[in-house]
Amino acid sequence: GNESDLKLTPSSFLRIGQLSNVDLNEDIHELETEVPRQRPNEIPHNEKLLSLKYESLDYDNSENQLFLEEERRINHAAFRTVEIKRWVICAMIGILTGLVACFIDIVVENLAGLKYRLVKDNIDKFTAKGGLSFSLLLWATLNASVVMVGSLIVAFIEPVAAGSGIPQIKCYLNGVKIPHVVRLKTLVIKVCGVILSVVGGLAVGKEGPMIHSGSVIAAGISQGRSTSLKRDFKIFEYFRRDTEKRDFVSAGAAAGVSAAFGAPVGGVLFSLEEGASFWNQFLTWRIFFASMISTFTLNSVLSVYHGNAWDLSSPGLINFGRFDSEKMEYTIQEIPIFIFMGVVGGILGALFNALNYWLTMFRIRYIHRPCLQVVEAMLVAAVTATVGFVMIYCSRDCQPLQGSSVAYPLQLFCADGEYNSMATAFFNTPEKSVVNLFHDPPGSYNPMTLGMFTVMYFFLACWTYGLTVSAGVFIPSLLIGAAWGRLFGISLSYLTKSSIWADPGKYALMGAAAQLGGIVRMTLSLTVIMMEATGNVTYGFPIMLVLMTAKIVGDYFVEGLYDMHIQLQSVPFLHWEAPVTSHSLTAREVMSTPVTCLRRIERVGTVVDILSDTSSNHNGFPVVESNPDTTQVAGLRGLILRSQLIVLLKHKVFVERTNLSLVQRRLKLKDFRDAYPRFPPIQSIHVSQDERECMIDLSEFMNPSPYTVPQEASLPRVFKLFRALGLRHLVVVDNRNEVVGMVTRKDLARYRLGKEGLEELSLAQT
Amino acid sequence: GNESDLKLTPSSFLRIGQLSNVDLNEDIHELETEVPRQRPNEIPHNEKLLSLKYESLDYDNSENQLFLEEERRINHAAFRTVEIKRWVICAMIGILTGLVACFIDIVVENLAGLKYRLVKDNIDKFTAKGGLSFSLLLWATLNASVVMVGSLIVAFIEPVAAGSGIPQIKCYLNGVKIPHVVRLKTLVIKVCGVILSVVGGLAVGKEGPMIHSGSVIAAGISQGRSTSLKRDFKIFEYFRRDTEKRDFVSAGAAAGVSAAFGAPVGGVLFSLEEGASFWNQFLTWRIFFASMISTFTLNSVLSVYHGNAWDLSSPGLINFGRFDSEKMEYTIQEIPIFIFMGVVGGILGALFNALNYWLTMFRIRYIHRPCLQVVEAMLVAAVTATVGFVMIYCSRDCQPLQGSSVAYPLQLFCADGEYNSMATAFFNTPEKSVVNLFHDPPGSYNPMTLGMFTVMYFFLACWTYGLTVSAGVFIPSLLIGAAWGRLFGISLSYLTKSSIWADPGKYALMGAAAQLGGIVRMTLSLTVIMMEATGNVTYGFPIMLVLMTAKIVGDYFVEGLYDMHIQLQSVPFLHWEAPVTSHSLTAREVMSTPVTCLRRIERVGTVVDILSDTSSNHNGFPVVESNPDTTQVAGLRGLILRSQLIVLLKHKVFVERTNLSLVQRRLKLKDFRDAYPRFPPIQSIHVSQDERECMIDLSEFMNPSPYTVPQEASLPRVFKLFRALGLRHLVVVDNRNEVVGMVTRKDLARYRLGKEGLEELSLAQT
Repeated sequence: GNESDLKLTPSSFLRIGQLSNVDLNEDIHELETEVPRQRPNEIPHNEKLLSLKYESLDYDNSENQLFLEEERRINHAAFRTVEIKRWVICAMIGILTGLVACFIDIVVENLAGLKYRLVKDNIDKFTAKGGLSFSLLLWATLNASVVMVGSLIVAFIEPVAAGSGIPQIKCYLNGVKIPHVVRLKTLVIKVCGVILSVVGGLAVGKEGPMIHSGSVIAAGISQGRSTSLKRDFKIFEYFRRDTEKRDFVSAGAAAGVSAAFGAPVGGVLFSLEEGASFWNQFLTWRIFFASMISTFTLNSVLSVYHGNAWDLSSPGLINFGRFDSEKMEYTIQEIPIFIFMGVVGGILGALFNALNYWLTMFRIRYIHRPCLQVVEAMLVAAVTATVGFVMIYCSRDCQPLQGSSVAYPLQLFCADGEYNSMATAFFNTPEKSVVNLFHDPPGSYNPMTLGMFTVMYFFLACWTYGLTVSAGVFIPSLLIGAAWGRLFGISLSYLTKSSIWADPGKYALMGAAAQLGGIVRMTLSLTVIMMEATGNVTYGFPIMLVLMTAKIVGDYFVEGLYDMHIQLQSVPFLHWEAPVTSHSLTAREVMSTPVTCLRRIERVGTVVDILSDTSSNHNGFPVVESNPDTTQVAGLRGLILRSQLIVLLKHKVFVERTNLSLVQRRLKLKDFRDAYPRFPPIQSIHVSQDERECMIDLSEFMNPSPYTVPQEASLPRVFKLFRALGLRHLVVVDNRNEVVGMVTRKDLARYRLGKEGLEELSLAQT
Repeated sequence: GNESDLKLTPSSFLRIGQLSNVDLNEDIHELETEVPRQRPNEIPHNEKLLSLKYESLDYDNSENQLFLEEERRINHAAFRTVEIKRWVICAMIGILTGLVACFIDIVVENLAGLKYRLVKDNIDKFTAKGGLSFSLLLWATLNASVVMVGSLIVAFIEPVAAGSGIPQIKCYLNGVKIPHVVRLKTLVIKVCGVILSVVGGLAVGKEGPMIHSGSVIAAGISQGRSTSLKRDFKIFEYFRRDTEKRDFVSAGAAAGVSAAFGAPVGGVLFSLEEGASFWNQFLTWRIFFASMISTFTLNSVLSVYHGNAWDLSSPGLINFGRFDSEKMEYTIQEIPIFIFMGVVGGILGALFNALNYWLTMFRIRYIHRPCLQVVEAMLVAAVTATVGFVMIYCSRDCQPLQGSSVAYPLQLFCADGEYNSMATAFFNTPEKSVVNLFHDPPGSYNPMTLGMFTVMYFFLACWTYGLTVSAGVFIPSLLIGAAWGRLFGISLSYLTKSSIWADPGKYALMGAAAQLGGIVRMTLSLTVIMMEATGNVTYGFPIMLVLMTAKIVGDYFVEGLYDMHIQLQSVPFLHWEAPVTSHSLTAREVMSTPVTCLRRIERVGTVVDILSDTSSNHNGFPVVESNPDTTQVAGLRGLILRSQLIVLLKHKVFVERTNLSLVQRRLKLKDFRDAYPRFPPIQSIHVSQDERECMIDLSEFMNPSPYTVPQEASLPRVFKLFRALGLRHLVVVDNRNEVVGMVTRKDLARYRLGKEGLEELSLAQT
């Protein structure tokens, strides 16, 4: 797009990256008085680049004449109908997201149960007569083959379904178009993939992907059609534009969180924290409605499935179980301890992210072929099973079976009536292990067991995140944290011999919060999610303290996991505010220039040539007064998008030059909506030589009041306008309202606050 | 301000109100195809007017040269210091708000205890020997005299401290300057006033005013000085502007909610729902921090005060008590019942608001003298006591004393070991009555008692809201709702004889939510507040359903109570979105015109004359190129505020005309900050005749990049820009960047969606 303009003007600021990797310490001195620390000499691939391959979404309505005419025709009652449709769609999003979550839960439970029973029977058989290596082989092979299928479909059919999908949804809500991210195919692969990953015994959770699934459902329903299935239900046509779709996707993401954790308020806050920039009361209320419906659907269906209809006891995919207020109260003296746990969580989280960073760099360089990715996933699955088996085998931690709630108790070498306690952690789905760590009575775990488990699981989870399978990182993080938190609690009660620290479950909860906070660095929403998942409000304050500490400590070292992956993808992501020290920059220095402008009445050939120019590939064009005398730079009259021009050309909306008095063919808004969102490329539209000489009148289709800034506006001011209104193009004009430049997402996203002050990322076509 | 411009152009739309009260049905037809319903002939005073007396706040930074120079001088480390200061201020806001809440709670508890014990002893004495009218007299006199003091200080010292303060804070966060609203004096009067109102036995709560108190504390602390006390601590000078102050006031309001209900997340959502337009992650996290600190402070101090230190069991001024999940689970069959309760709550809430509306109109017309206001407050206090006494006296509902938790059991004519059950509702602070209704075991109340109580309390609360005392409406609403909800629950169990409806406390809770929702129409935040106050997440879904139903039903009849009072004050309040049918209007029709512009180098006399012009009283002036040839309309160069001009004139920043080469005196940002927020009026600045002939160069002080819109922009587009960025002035320019008009808050707030389509309110100086 205009977004793709490489800056031609030399910048006086630090520009780091592949293209120009020079250390301009003098320039830094101009910016800050601090002496900058020396940077490492080798700057890794991809880190300080912005990719030009990502396009933006149009979150600002193009208020052209067609749109205004339609809006003016709609009366008050019709607007009420639109509003009711919005609510209906949100209810449908909630219901469907809840049902998808139910499906995942039930299938995983059954398949995983099958697998664990099979392996348990095998182990029980071989424990007596020796030859446990067969059991290991069975376990590892089962895992590897299930994961192979899960990885195959992701790697070969829809690679965007890999991972948790949270970074992708963050980008989408931020306004970056990630190809295929909200397609039906992605949903199918995601759902199958996550089931296979969890059943395959990887150190992953099924919660994160729910957010992505909810978003896809929302995007699909709100459009009333599926372009993949070529089915158009002819409903909800009013919502076929980026602005409306984004609002529903927010609701879908919230419904996903809500279904995953039984946390409807947390879901709303997640959507707002990660996505929204403009807080709108009605929108928020609708998002909340979708969230509530989602958790309620899940709850009802699962209650019926589990045979105790109407008791509504499973609001989410994971339930942390009841934390009784009496038993687990905290006192004011424990607060410093919680803060200390936050510090530990921050450090361990940063370590996790740093390791994962190097791993991801390695993967980008060497494991980019799909076959290799599948092999790696299988390897991880086999290793996970092996590590688990060896740990269980070596563990001599036996616990009485009576009174415990272990799902698949492995006896192994324990006495009769006892079970191997290491197996509760490894030989189980991670969700169940988390709940066990929270609620098993004191003394259920040997400290040695917990320590070993923490270390091994930490490395396994770190290795697993980033594999080509769909899977989330929430549950493994919680599990690691719960393990060391419980260990911490046990140590405390050993050390102090006081009954006040008696319950290690409380510390397991705080550890889980600290570890998760240290890895993903979410704040308000995570506090509320944890509060809702525990069903207990009293823990709010310590959880907040722990998360805040973990975030502050973690941010000192490296970024959060999701932000890190977004940056590794070189996505032009706009943060909340412009870098604090960027007041020295103005729109003049930031903007892309020169800008390709169109005249209000333009020759078709010119339009086609401009659109076909692959070297610039602009997406938005200022429309200027069509005075033939003026040069390119001229008074701004409007702004028109590539997608609009494509539709105009496709429908041959133009008149012969010799006969300008003829009326140009009229288009309706419906023509634009039908083409949305997959506009054809310019190459697919045939324009004959005669047609090239025709004229096209853009007045009716251009947005006559695009937002503009003067050249003197500072970067933070431009940024605020751009971010608050969700813009894609911002025209920079001079004192006479003449176009001098264009600011797009990439022009703003490239400025970043590095360790040495303001940095400017390079742009690249990768 | 320019905000004060009366529109000179005739409008083609409905203009209703005092100034031109004509029914233009033809015009309505142009807008909608629906046939409009006939409006009542008499349109009450004040309803369809916007007052011009309210000024706006500047939530958009004036990025002039001085500001940019300062920002550029600040390096990264210094910005970190600013950030740390923000956190420190938020912590202080939380602590102080918590302490103020503690103070109110402890004083009210002691004074009210004293009063009730006194009256109870008296009643006990006279029950035996007859002459209970003395007791009534004592009770009524005590109440009336306490309320008299409370009303006197409000009416004569600081009238803005009346009521709950929530409408005022809503306006402040919306960007309307309400005089005195965040002053220290207001806080003192508010705190004393609320104590006296509650002790005086009015049907009021002490929770709503906490929101106002928190806001004042925030505004005070963040400025590092008190203009009332004339103390400047020379700290936090960076925060002396409207933008920063607003952020802290949001945090203060959240801290207030948090202290009132023990609901930190609810507090954050309240601030966002009522105030913020731009969602900023860092800001939200700070607000949450202040909220958490506030409830934690309150909890700690009250725990220590009540002698059970460290148990942290009183997170808010009102605690709904523990709702045990086992005992009070709901089933799916109850959901239609809850929805029905929501409908009842919506209707009763609308009735409450409608009655209060007529009462307020009456008060505006006839009770505007402070003495009369005090007399009315005393009358209400006496009547409240009398009604309570008569109800208690007539009630024959006796309950066994054993096992009940009544604070001041009145025996009256009951047998020994029994108490009068009506007295638990009337002879107690409303907070305690609410908790009793939630938690007293089934059978504690006679249905007759509850019915009578609901009716009487409904009218008393309705009469009380709007009195010249500081007091909130949350608790009375909850109390009314809890009473009829409990009655409803009892009826259900009578009717069905099923044990599933056994616990009427659940229905009391839903009734309370429905009634409160029906009156105030808050949505997401109220759901979360109720969830947090009950400490129980499982009720989230039914509470949401109830609140949503109550809001939809209530909105069908009249507006919410706060919005109604804001409208009765004719405040130019900007809602979330422009009216849906306003696409037919453009900036050209909406803007105020003509605009008074200044030249970049302007004669001092001209500036003084323009500022002194009381007929226009503009607050923002576009600065245009100082070409002497051009007429008034000319290319826009910047925007300067009245307050900035005042500071310039005060510091004599100008040079003689004959000697333009001389350098004008330099001002620092500090000079503007020192004058903030009470800029002197122009009349207090003496400018001699010689000085009038001097020239003043505005280039350095004006904002060189004001936001602009073209004339063709539609009203929703202008509205979105204005609201999202928190603007005060938006310059309308033509194609040549020449100033043609100015859009201010009043130009946007006057368009409203009435029953018949788009309405245009009139502007008046009242």
